[in-house]
Amino acid sequence: MAARNPLNIGAAARAMSNFGFSHLRVVNPYQVAFREAKSAVGAEKLLADAEEYSNVAEAVADCTLVVGTTALHHRELQHPMYRLDEADADADAGGAERIRQQLAAGRVALLFGSEKRGLANTDLSHCNFLMRIPTRDEHSSMNLGQAVALCLYEIVRESGESRTSKASPAGERSAQQKDEPLAPAADSERLTQLLLDALRASGYVKRGADELTEEKVRRMVRRLHLQNDDAQVWLGMLRKILYKLRGPENS
Amino acid sequence: MAARNPLNIGAAARAMSNFGFSHLRVVNPYQVAFREAKSAVGAEKLLADAEEYSNVAEAVADCTLVVGTTALHHRELQHPMYRLDEADADADAGGAERIRQQLAAGRVALLFGSEKRGLANTDLSHCNFLMRIPTRDEHSSMNLGQAVALCLYEIVRESGESRTSKASPAGERSAQQKDEPLAPAADSERLTQLLLDALRASGYVKRGADELTEEKVRRMVRRLHLQNDDAQVWLGMLRKILYKLRGPENS
Repeated sequence: MAARNPLNIGAAARAMSNFGFSHLRVVNPYQVAFREAKSAVGAEKLLADAEEYSNVAEAVADCTLVVGTTALHHRELQHPMYRLDEADADADAGGAERIRQQLAAGRVALLFGSEKRGLANTDLSHCNFLMRIPTRDEHSSMNLGQAVALCLYEIVRESGESRTSKASPAGERSAQQKDEPLAPAADSERLTQLLLDALRASGYVKRGADELTEEKVRRMVRRLHLQNDDAQVWLGMLRKILYKLRGPENS
Repeated sequence: MAARNPLNIGAAARAMSNFGFSHLRVVNPYQVAFREAKSAVGAEKLLADAEEYSNVAEAVADCTLVVGTTALHHRELQHPMYRLDEADADADAGGAERIRQQLAAGRVALLFGSEKRGLANTDLSHCNFLMRIPTRDEHSSMNLGQAVALCLYEIVRESGESRTSKASPAGERSAQQKDEPLAPAADSERLTQLLLDALRASGYVKRGADELTEEKVRRMVRRLHLQNDDAQVWLGMLRKILYKLRGPENS
């Protein structure tokens, strides 16, 4: 959560408690007093236990799935985008369902930006996919605490029908993704940095375009949805390549 | 809405706008400045157009279904209680679905109490049924703006699966209730008052118990779920009875 308004952080904590979530992580909170937010009615401990991070990479390091939330319908298509509540025509599962599936295997980070500006492009580059709440086109921007409540409600809701039909053994998830633990975000980020180092060392990165390239590469790596085993192999390969690129004297 | 915190009223207005609802009615707002609530981002007009009422009866007079919201699981069972999101084992439809069905035929009032105390018993006596949001038992009390957002989201959400299966022509709604317009709340209240007058005139109401009786009778009348035609007949019958009870000189 990259929020700036302590009222909103408190309201988010309360919704988390309402629906049984406990790990609140706050990135760069603007006001240090956020832990005393009165809006956290009944969730004071959860708020007091919130962890502070100085950047998104560290906040999501141990998560195997990182999901960004947005009110916009038409982002540049650098990320897969799913509706919170149901599968779009071109997807086989909605955002909340994908999160439920992954929660069985590892930690999921749900990223919320500040109410005014949403998540920055750099924040988004850490995400595996984006999720949007189906608000009206004419007024899509939601209150942060309300958006948090909706997402958590949808993740824990158990609709008898959709549960039974989707949990059937003949489900359509590809066998490839099934049950294989995904790589934690920390490894994806390590991979990103190694790849960037390799790109810089190879002269691929153009002068002045470093930041842009970093975001592009990060997104590209997240889109791989690497399984944990594969990620370790990739890391090893990249370390080797980088070592070669730099030559023994610079490593 | 019987809320007292202008921030909450503003947040409710914003959620209404997010999900395409427009008629906000406020009963006895505590602070007259609520119309300037800054939390109504993007919903300033909706908030400015909010109608003020001095009591619930007038606020819901033109509605054919009045639904109270509560965080509690175990109210005294004076009202049917449905979960927001799905049918309980002993019901054939969840609260949101019942609201959707009725919205096709008439206006529905969704009642929210103040965050601290919820809806008073008198407010509840105007309701046809209660609806609860499935929060954790250990922390069930929600922020008002978040509760409003959840209810409206659930009412407008279109889950492909549940829609198709429940909108099938072989649906299980009783033919009796189908398509017949229900009586507006104003008529239910007229009926309640006529019945109370008749009970008082007949000496049924015990001294000092008038208020309690009024709530009980109101609930009883709401549980009838009267169709509009039937309500007119009942009103006529009660007027006649009352006239008789009082005798010509008092009518």
